Amino acid sequence: MANAMLLPVLISFLVLPFSAMALTQDFCVADLSCSDTPAGYPCKTGVGAGDFYYHGLAAAGNTSNLIKAAVTPAFVGQFPGVNGLGISAARLDIAVGGVVPMHTHPAASELLFVTEGTILAGFISSSSNTVYTKTLYKGDIMVFPQGLLHYQYNGGSSSAVALVAFSGPNPGLQITDYALFANNLPSAVVEKVTFLDDAQVKKLKSVLGGSG
Amino acid sequence: MANAMLLPVLISFLVLPFSAMALTQDFCVADLSCSDTPAGYPCKTGVGAGDFYYHGLAAAGNTSNLIKAAVTPAFVGQFPGVNGLGISAARLDIAVGGVVPMHTHPAASELLFVTEGTILAGFISSSSNTVYTKTLYKGDIMVFPQGLLHYQYNGGSSSAVALVAFSGPNPGLQITDYALFANNLPSAVVEKVTFLDDAQVKKLKSVLGGSG
Amino acid sequence: MANAMLLPVLISFLVLPFSAMALTQDFCVADLSCSDTPAGYPCKTGVGAGDFYYHGLAAAGNTSNLIKAAVTPAFVGQFPGVNGLGISAARLDIAVGGVVPMHTHPAASELLFVTEGTILAGFISSSSNTVYTKTLYKGDIMVFPQGLLHYQYNGGSSSAVALVAFSGPNPGLQITDYALFANNLPSAVVEKVTFLDDAQVKKLKSVLGGSG
Amino acid sequence: MANAMLLPVLISFLVLPFSAMALTQDFCVADLSCSDTPAGYPCKTGVGAGDFYYHGLAAAGNTSNLIKAAVTPAFVGQFPGVNGLGISAARLDIAVGGVVPMHTHPAASELLFVTEGTILAGFISSSSNTVYTKTLYKGDIMVFPQGLLHYQYNGGSSSAVALVAFSGPNPGLQITDYALFANNLPSAVVEKVTFLDDAQVKKLKSVLGGSG
Amino acid sequence: MANAMLLPVLISFLVLPFSAMALTQDFCVADLSCSDTPAGYPCKTGVGAGDFYYHGLAAAGNTSNLIKAAVTPAFVGQFPGVNGLGISAARLDIAVGGVVPMHTHPAASELLFVTEGTILAGFISSSSNTVYTKTLYKGDIMVFPQGLLHYQYNGGSSSAVALVAFSGPNPGLQITDYALFANNLPSAVVEKVTFLDDAQVKKLKSVLGGSG
Amino acid sequence: MANAMLLPVLISFLVLPFSAMALTQDFCVADLSCSDTPAGYPCKTGVGAGDFYYHGLAAAGNTSNLIKAAVTPAFVGQFPGVNGLGISAARLDIAVGGVVPMHTHPAASELLFVTEGTILAGFISSSSNTVYTKTLYKGDIMVFPQGLLHYQYNGGSSSAVALVAFSGPNPGLQITDYALFANNLPSAVVEKVTFLDDAQVKKLKSVLGGSG
Repeated sequence: MANAMLLPVLISFLVLPFSAMALTQDFCVADLSCSDTPAGYPCKTGVGAGDFYYHGLAAAGNTSNLIKAAVTPAFVGQFPGVNGLGISAARLDIAVGGVVPMHTHPAASELLFVTEGTILAGFISSSSNTVYTKTLYKGDIMVFPQGLLHYQYNGGSSSAVALVAFSGPNPGLQITDYALFANNLPSAVVEKVTFLDDAQVKKLKSVLGGSG
Repeated sequence: MANAMLLPVLISFLVLPFSAMALTQDFCVADLSCSDTPAGYPCKTGVGAGDFYYHGLAAAGNTSNLIKAAVTPAFVGQFPGVNGLGISAARLDIAVGGVVPMHTHPAASELLFVTEGTILAGFISSSSNTVYTKTLYKGDIMVFPQGLLHYQYNGGSSSAVALVAFSGPNPGLQITDYALFANNLPSAVVEKVTFLDDAQVKKLKSVLGGSG
Repeated sequence: MANAMLLPVLISFLVLPFSAMALTQDFCVADLSCSDTPAGYPCKTGVGAGDFYYHGLAAAGNTSNLIKAAVTPAFVGQFPGVNGLGISAARLDIAVGGVVPMHTHPAASELLFVTEGTILAGFISSSSNTVYTKTLYKGDIMVFPQGLLHYQYNGGSSSAVALVAFSGPNPGLQITDYALFANNLPSAVVEKVTFLDDAQVKKLKSVLGGSG
Repeated sequence: MANAMLLPVLISFLVLPFSAMALTQDFCVADLSCSDTPAGYPCKTGVGAGDFYYHGLAAAGNTSNLIKAAVTPAFVGQFPGVNGLGISAARLDIAVGGVVPMHTHPAASELLFVTEGTILAGFISSSSNTVYTKTLYKGDIMVFPQGLLHYQYNGGSSSAVALVAFSGPNPGLQITDYALFANNLPSAVVEKVTFLDDAQVKKLKSVLGGSG
Repeated sequence: MANAMLLPVLISFLVLPFSAMALTQDFCVADLSCSDTPAGYPCKTGVGAGDFYYHGLAAAGNTSNLIKAAVTPAFVGQFPGVNGLGISAARLDIAVGGVVPMHTHPAASELLFVTEGTILAGFISSSSNTVYTKTLYKGDIMVFPQGLLHYQYNGGSSSAVALVAFSGPNPGLQITDYALFANNLPSAVVEKVTFLDDAQVKKLKSVLGGSG
Repeated sequence: MANAMLLPVLISFLVLPFSAMALTQDFCVADLSCSDTPAGYPCKTGVGAGDFYYHGLAAAGNTSNLIKAAVTPAFVGQFPGVNGLGISAARLDIAVGGVVPMHTHPAASELLFVTEGTILAGFISSSSNTVYTKTLYKGDIMVFPQGLLHYQYNGGSSSAVALVAFSGPNPGLQITDYALFANNLPSAVVEKVTFLDDAQVKKLKSVLGGSG
């Protein structure tokens, strides 16, 4: 009987006072066809469950390369559902002997979780150039503060896999070697600002496809 | 005489060095015809005093429903002038015996100010599930931290009215009963994730218009 | 029977996995005995419902003064429960003929809600010095963007009362007249930086208790 | 020879101009013995590599309870190294038939990565009470926007494990059932603000250890 | 030989795993042809080195006016490269006897660096109306907190020049005299909200081009 | 006469309603004797004008070293007045032939203003490793986005001086060479994560005082 009474009244409650709030922003799935803004992409319309789901980290990345490693991102560009939510992810696959070279993420801190194998990881502080390193086994986590140089490499005898999460939807990835050698920054300038020898610079420029 | 001297010079001062600053963003009234972004709507052009003014909270909401209550929002969707300003408002009307059911605002803290009557209000902390309750009379204020479950109901013998302010332009409103029962989430799932009995779930699904 | 089964198991659920999360920060009531930080005060311990409640806005402020107005704050200094929550409040009482003089809030936007009487309010944009004014009646709201000069005065024939909410726990209040005349800034400097006449500056310095 | 020349000069470079910058804040490992602040804990001194490492998620949580699930947090309280870095983590273990009940995180968005088994997960939007659900297999990720009700349960025939990352160091966890039934909120109030039947409320209060 | 081996492998590394990250947002040069948003302008495409460079502060501003001063802005409107980067700049030229009148920046703190001459500067706190003043010589810096009234004038016998930096890309500039007298705010209102005399208000309205 | 009337009333206005707001936080000068927090240092008491002033950039840094350059910081550690204000500064002195080596600021964007001489500057984007370079003359400004590798060197025939401003009070400075070679990170690890030759690594480790 309470039920019978409740029915018509709650329904009117349902449709009346809260119907005006249709613009509430619970989330803002990126419309990648629009220009980005400093706070992220404009929100797409017509959102479904699939927008909050990403399958692209399920498969191992291809580590058949010299570094024997692959970084598979789930940043806003690949996974638009993280837009505006302050988080994103990536998968690391590192074969035996493989390495994710020294790099920074200019726009996020990183939290690494080892799901397979053994990873040696480290980061370097800016003030005192102190090195913080750990050997990480399956189930271990390590955090790398935003903007600091860090690296990971396989420290074991089998493939290593890690999930990494970032404190922003678009963390960026600046690999030092690429920044120095994989572009047209003249060798003389590279040498001047790094104190590296000319032969070293030209060698790595050649390897990484840089010019100048 | 000083006046006469001042006139031509200050006017040139007026029109010269600061004329370049026409793009200064003092405010950003929402252009609701554009897509939202994670930081709010793009700014409309042609702003006037009316954009910073809202009349919609002046009239009592209709409490002729079972909950005997009405929430009248002045969020960015109704009051575009608050876009980007970190604040919004709403009006609560609660008739005798009325209630604003258990709910959260995912995107803002709430400050409630009683303008008429008596309101019993409470919120529940997340860690220890501690209940914080107060009986509020005309002129009293209470604050509800962002994202925590809270409720208000009329604790007196006359209508109660409150102005509530939010720490963001689009606070959201998630009423627990609606989230659980007013949609197509299957009853079996609701029961699994809430431990509620099947009869209870189906009764409220029926009342609130849910299916499944 | 299900109940009997449920009992021992859920209780173990209760005490086991989540007991480690006692440090969750749902709120951070200010410990005003500590030094402030750029993000607000350190959190006090031993919080109760009273910490989220404030009675100080219930009584009218004393308007028996020349401006015939009173501002009663519920900022973090008076209402420590708003610390870290991005919101605070104040009460304005403006007698007939009274005025809240031209002022800014350096650290918050303001949302004004008229609860009694008629208030004439306005603010001035920074780029074009455009004036935005409205006559506000009971139930009307107006928003004043952060940092911009604004004012309110009683525009009716009875007392006016407003609740104002701020987009921060410590909005600040810089009344232009006080900043110019109620301190020891030398008259010659005031005149140089405002183009006011010497007699005008000295008159208001005298009235407001300034020196120099 | 260049080396010999370089040596004395660079060392003086090393010790001179940058020695003044010892206070640079690359990170801020929480000193949990201090009071928290709205932006996190004060920074501890004497930081080492171990402060950025956490082993506590390596072992499975104990799922020998009715919900057949365990949440093992690596929030700032367990893993002080994430303080101020905008990220934290947790491990979910869900046995066959197990469930993480309907809950919210008031202070962070969540990104879930399945490392073993099959998880059925869903969240509910605030405005339209729309349900977004997915069946997640090993390697899949799903994101749950801040403050919205969501749940996870094992949808397969073997144990499921997930790593979850949060967009803040102290996300909070408010389980709806605990908030409603595991405290001293009087049954009459629970019923009033949830429309649940008295028998249902008292049953769950009894099970979850609530009183009143 | 190592080089020969390295070449093909690293190039495949170069083009494979990271090629998917083309949407990384290192910067967001303003597209001023789009509508602004609360977080800044949408990002333009086709960015070059020139977008991060600005020549407009190299030349002295024209101080042939009564205030004998000029403010040359490099805000986002003039220098779109600062969009989203939390910083901007301006150049002050103050001839002998010149002054930058009492003003605020509603949306940023200011850091002033004297490059030529002597500048007397001060700001006024909001709570206690305390005046903080310094005489600044070449090479000195002073910081002015966001939203507080401040001023600068030439305190020496030669021209003064300063570079000022702001903690935001669009700081705004509200000159008190302009806000009060250079618009159509009626004299009666100005007098009511400032306690200035009618003659004073009308004199400055006349000088600064105000009406009413 | 109006003056005489005004006097007693305004003074009561002065001392009454606003006296309660003594805790307003206009600024938060760092108390460097306290522990830092993620949002900056606790605020010191007893603040004076000198706290907002810094003389330490007035004198040229000592460039009698190999890099022929000096960076003189005015970060929160040297200039506590910038705490919480989102800005700081530094002075660059670069002798003929001098260089500020490749580096990042993990926690701020940089705006550089040339006050003497000619500076060649550049930064490198993270996604495409694109180089953005400019030759900067006196009065030119350039902006370097947060966290990206950049460098400056003297491109002229006389000493160069620049003022740099940062979008935060504690920007950090990570010089790539120092991070790689001026600590105890083993040479084998450096080589593995940078692809530099062993001889090159050992040479620079020797020069910069590194071990391992």
